[in-house]
Amino acid sequence: MGFVADKQPYVVPTIHARVGETLYVHGSVASRMLKNLSRGIEVCLTVTLLDGLVLARSAFHHSMNYRSVLVLGRAALVTDEDQKRAALTALVNRVLPGRAAEVRGPNRKELNATSVLSLPITEVSAKIRRGPPVDAEADYALPCWAGVLPLALMALPAQPDPRLPTDTPVPQAVTAWSRGAGRMLGKG
Amino acid sequence: MGFVADKQPYVVPTIHARVGETLYVHGSVASRMLKNLSRGIEVCLTVTLLDGLVLARSAFHHSMNYRSVLVLGRAALVTDEDQKRAALTALVNRVLPGRAAEVRGPNRKELNATSVLSLPITEVSAKIRRGPPVDAEADYALPCWAGVLPLALMALPAQPDPRLPTDTPVPQAVTAWSRGAGRMLGKG
Repeated sequence: MGFVADKQPYVVPTIHARVGETLYVHGSVASRMLKNLSRGIEVCLTVTLLDGLVLARSAFHHSMNYRSVLVLGRAALVTDEDQKRAALTALVNRVLPGRAAEVRGPNRKELNATSVLSLPITEVSAKIRRGPPVDAEADYALPCWAGVLPLALMALPAQPDPRLPTDTPVPQAVTAWSRGAGRMLGKG
Repeated sequence: MGFVADKQPYVVPTIHARVGETLYVHGSVASRMLKNLSRGIEVCLTVTLLDGLVLARSAFHHSMNYRSVLVLGRAALVTDEDQKRAALTALVNRVLPGRAAEVRGPNRKELNATSVLSLPITEVSAKIRRGPPVDAEADYALPCWAGVLPLALMALPAQPDPRLPTDTPVPQAVTAWSRGAGRMLGKG
């Protein structure tokens, strides 16, 4: 998520969740900027998946295969408690589907300590590059290897917390994660 | 890379390369903003590697394992031709080591069509989270599974360009990539 403070842009990694036509993020760094900004703050939430390195026959046409989406708008602090709880539930379920129902929910102190920002999905820009390199026509005659080096985000087997009693039941979603370890996530 | 235009932050995915204490990026979107800004533009270049999903016993302590670095500063258009050529060489070699020597270098037209931004590495902030969840002490008694679901960026076998003659020699770096397919990249 990108935001501006004193004309300096900042980009911080964050978890996001979508509920209907609204995105939610933890306030984290941005929440400090928001303290006195009841009107909200202009942000840019960008999500990018890197799918591969594109090796062309010319330096100029080297590229990446990727899928990226950029959401622009004004993020506001969520003050309504029901909306805040729903957003936090969505954020935990974004980490792992169904997870929010399996864990202790936020207590009063935690709720107060957590800032949540909402961002309406109104202005969006998506950019995708896929497929082989595109070279200048004359360059296809060059004796140079060209192609794509694919990349994928992979699930690896779940690592239980060292402090977890060994007889703790493993939830279905975690079993499924480990069973699918080595599979590619988020392939387009 | 994050930058600001008319008070709106933008975050765009981009390749970067490092030469000494300077980072280089393609101008891409930012270069349009730079046209009339000889002084440069404030940017934030953030690189994040996602290492896993952290499942705690409470909703509040859910998190991600990641390594992130954020470089703040003023990016400037590279106008010196030697510096620009060196930056483009570094960018291609960042895609694959040694690649720049194997492909056709930029011609005059391509050089003019490419904007390169330089960003001195002066103000940097790194943030890392690793290891198991950290729960409130009382929560360790909960009968709830907790741990980490690891993620890793994986190399997959190289895909030759469909227009590549089948007798084209495969460079060593590409052979090494395919031989290492399935290995994790960038593990800390």
